[in-house]
Amino acid sequence: MVGIDDMALYVPKLYLPISVLAEERNISYEKLNKGLGLENLAIPDVHEDTATMAANAIVELMERNQLNPNSIGRIYLGTESALDGAKPTATYVLEMLRRKYRDQWGVHCLRNCDVVDLTFACVGGVDALQNTLDWVKSDPERIGIVVCADFAKYELGSTGEYTQGAGAIALLISHQPRLMTIDNTFGVATMGVHDFFKPKKNISKLQLIKEVLDLAGVDHIRPEEVLGNIPETLSSHGVLDDTDSMLNLRKDTPVFDGQYSNFTYQNRIREAFLDFKNKKIRAGSLNQHTPVIGNWERLIFHLPYAAHGRRIASELFMLELSAIGKWTEFATAYNLIKPEVTDFPDKETYQQAYSQFLRAVTKTKAYKEFVLHKLSKAEVASSEVGNMYACSGFLALMSTLFEDFKEGAAISGKKYGFIGYGSGSKSKVFEATIQSSWKEVVRHFDLNHKLSSRKAVDYTTYENLHRMKTDTSILQPSGEFQLSSISEVEMKEGARYYEWVNTPSTSSEMVRDFEKDLAK
Amino acid sequence: MVGIDDMALYVPKLYLPISVLAEERNISYEKLNKGLGLENLAIPDVHEDTATMAANAIVELMERNQLNPNSIGRIYLGTESALDGAKPTATYVLEMLRRKYRDQWGVHCLRNCDVVDLTFACVGGVDALQNTLDWVKSDPERIGIVVCADFAKYELGSTGEYTQGAGAIALLISHQPRLMTIDNTFGVATMGVHDFFKPKKNISKLQLIKEVLDLAGVDHIRPEEVLGNIPETLSSHGVLDDTDSMLNLRKDTPVFDGQYSNFTYQNRIREAFLDFKNKKIRAGSLNQHTPVIGNWERLIFHLPYAAHGRRIASELFMLELSAIGKWTEFATAYNLIKPEVTDFPDKETYQQAYSQFLRAVTKTKAYKEFVLHKLSKAEVASSEVGNMYACSGFLALMSTLFEDFKEGAAISGKKYGFIGYGSGSKSKVFEATIQSSWKEVVRHFDLNHKLSSRKAVDYTTYENLHRMKTDTSILQPSGEFQLSSISEVEMKEGARYYEWVNTPSTSSEMVRDFEKDLAK
Repeated sequence: MVGIDDMALYVPKLYLPISVLAEERNISYEKLNKGLGLENLAIPDVHEDTATMAANAIVELMERNQLNPNSIGRIYLGTESALDGAKPTATYVLEMLRRKYRDQWGVHCLRNCDVVDLTFACVGGVDALQNTLDWVKSDPERIGIVVCADFAKYELGSTGEYTQGAGAIALLISHQPRLMTIDNTFGVATMGVHDFFKPKKNISKLQLIKEVLDLAGVDHIRPEEVLGNIPETLSSHGVLDDTDSMLNLRKDTPVFDGQYSNFTYQNRIREAFLDFKNKKIRAGSLNQHTPVIGNWERLIFHLPYAAHGRRIASELFMLELSAIGKWTEFATAYNLIKPEVTDFPDKETYQQAYSQFLRAVTKTKAYKEFVLHKLSKAEVASSEVGNMYACSGFLALMSTLFEDFKEGAAISGKKYGFIGYGSGSKSKVFEATIQSSWKEVVRHFDLNHKLSSRKAVDYTTYENLHRMKTDTSILQPSGEFQLSSISEVEMKEGARYYEWVNTPSTSSEMVRDFEKDLAK
Repeated sequence: MVGIDDMALYVPKLYLPISVLAEERNISYEKLNKGLGLENLAIPDVHEDTATMAANAIVELMERNQLNPNSIGRIYLGTESALDGAKPTATYVLEMLRRKYRDQWGVHCLRNCDVVDLTFACVGGVDALQNTLDWVKSDPERIGIVVCADFAKYELGSTGEYTQGAGAIALLISHQPRLMTIDNTFGVATMGVHDFFKPKKNISKLQLIKEVLDLAGVDHIRPEEVLGNIPETLSSHGVLDDTDSMLNLRKDTPVFDGQYSNFTYQNRIREAFLDFKNKKIRAGSLNQHTPVIGNWERLIFHLPYAAHGRRIASELFMLELSAIGKWTEFATAYNLIKPEVTDFPDKETYQQAYSQFLRAVTKTKAYKEFVLHKLSKAEVASSEVGNMYACSGFLALMSTLFEDFKEGAAISGKKYGFIGYGSGSKSKVFEATIQSSWKEVVRHFDLNHKLSSRKAVDYTTYENLHRMKTDTSILQPSGEFQLSSISEVEMKEGARYYEWVNTPSTSSEMVRDFEKDLAK
């Protein structure tokens, strides 16, 4: 059996208390805190990006498990915050690791390690996991690492702002895993929708020139004239004298529709859950009326905000009760009537009634007990970090395991159900069986200390970081990788250089192109 | 055994003859044609993008094989021309297919199909293939589709311009494949370098304003003043009144260093080839002196331009001769002396001598015969299309199979060796065994007709398309998907809408958000 042997979280050392944001935006703190479960949101410092966070998480995993880098056959990265459109962010991670470990393990360590980026919003990490499990399974010698890293950044003042967060989680995938084995069955449901996305955007240079002239109050020069003044050369130096008539923008912040995203999330997880169940039934390991959720000691949802799981799970809760023949009893006890499409004049009215009904289910004592027992432990860490996109589900997993450990829960041999979601949209559902050695692994997760030893920033610092107005780190990095510089040299423009920093005053040689160094 | 059952190429219907570009840029046509093997380069029309090309290739594959969409468990896309940073381009492909097939196969067809994007420059398609083979292998019922799609676009006037190209290739992955089985052993070598990449670039609004004012000849207003005039609002409407102090650019064209890329390509393929060999030796299926290339009837290289394979393969050719104990005989016959590091004052001088030596190997009669027999068939289609990035290796494969078919070559039961490369950088090496039914499959590839029925464009049309100065299709689409519009509506800004066009006058309903339509 294969599965997850160990996990490591990297979370930025800066955070913004949600109370500060609530006050600044004039939003009720109660709504954000009690309603959505938000407490603090993690913010990357100036020297951090997707690659440093991922590499930092992997270093913790490697050091704790004393891994020989040459034994790691693949590092698959799930992210929607890639730093490049062609070169995978995973290659930056690989080079940081190689540079760090080459003194001990040789200059060619990690040379035959397979790395790649997988992109599907918040579910790309689950895709990386599923494929790495398949790969590890084929050979008893194999071990692999799955890493997720993301910076969930939303526009200032947008309705997504208070759900921001950042970080990375690395998973060690092996045979005979100490933490959990993962079953081969993955339920999946997909539909191409636009609930949340980060599109390419081409803006015309003419429009941009017009904006600048307007802002400058210049009305005696036509924008077309300015455009015509751009030298008709094929070599580009400035921003405007590039050969396209458009500028290709791709913002780090998404275009999104929160309500619609809740709707697609709910539909996809239902469909993926049913697909999971159908696959199990076809394989003969379930029948239509066997409990599934009832067999899951905990439910691990992708959590865009801490309370999202408990808000969205009521439909699955109802489906389960129906399947095991207990719905009527439940509905009668709580006086709930499930609306039928045929009772409503149109689909929209039905949808509203159905939503109200699902909300009513969440108010029942039975549902609240279900949440307390199976969902609430996942929320603890999420409240402190915010959304981590591709890592959020794995943070929910670490949080649950850690709370179970602190509580001394008897989960050995029990099943966890995992419900991933990625906007755009896809859900994946699978289950894991907790191994008897789980406590030895989870005791090292160190979540309390990691989350309590961070530094709060004030609103102005937050806004300056968000607007990219500052280029000096708020906290000097120590015992971690940092982004050191971005090249402006021709043929290297935009190349990112990293280094390991032991203490603020000692940093290792910068990670430039390794191959060029070797050739010297 | 699992492998590739069938393949389908989509190539844009427009091309630029390389002779036209040579004349316009004042480059020797001989150099491009005889030297690099370039003849024509494929250019996407206004209504084409990564998603339409991929979907068009898959439609051909599905129709020819009369596939039930509900039987397809996954569609994995390898691309470095993704249309979004979060939502995978594969979801656009999925929705086009669902919309096309829902009348025949039901509104929920493809609902449980797993799709994702894999990014590693030109080798991401091989990653998609390897993972899909692993997945199909685990269950006798499974079939999957791997699709690669890219638009290799370089700056006008750059040294990459003449290697441009575009297109998509879809592969049907199944048990008992009719075309070729693929062996489980994948050699891999990775190093994080900057030979070719498409970085995020943040440019300051201040710098941009300064550029516009300079072009406008306005010197009485300070750029800082204009920047200060941007309303300090948290809602953004124009390009400049976004909340960041920077504009996030990501160009479609790469930053690259061609010479360096040749160097990293050569190093990675050598390392991956040796890794492949070592894995085979460890598995007991080879010894150090068994021929590998000698057992490969054809070699399928990733071809950034047609003649790249023959230019780069001489080192592998030499390694093979050494391994099988025939190097001395060969070197003596051609009077070649392999330089040794110790004979040179520094690494740079050695590198030069070594490169010269490898070039000398390519001039030998034996090497030319090797090229003619094992490499040249891959070049035929590449010459006509140009670089297709993630698809280029698969185009080389289709071209070789098609030439073998036309020639009536006896390749049943023979092995093809595959050498993939992706900048940034990674190589993967694997081998396939041609199945006895291969001709039935290859006869439908239709390469000659596809490549000969395209339309040449003149230089001005090419430049207008390249600069994005035109928004009217050069050729009206027919029997294919088209990009119909890009939304400018709030919360959907940048959403891409597609439709199937039967003939220029009849097009199907547009592919907007399917879920929203369903809800109505």
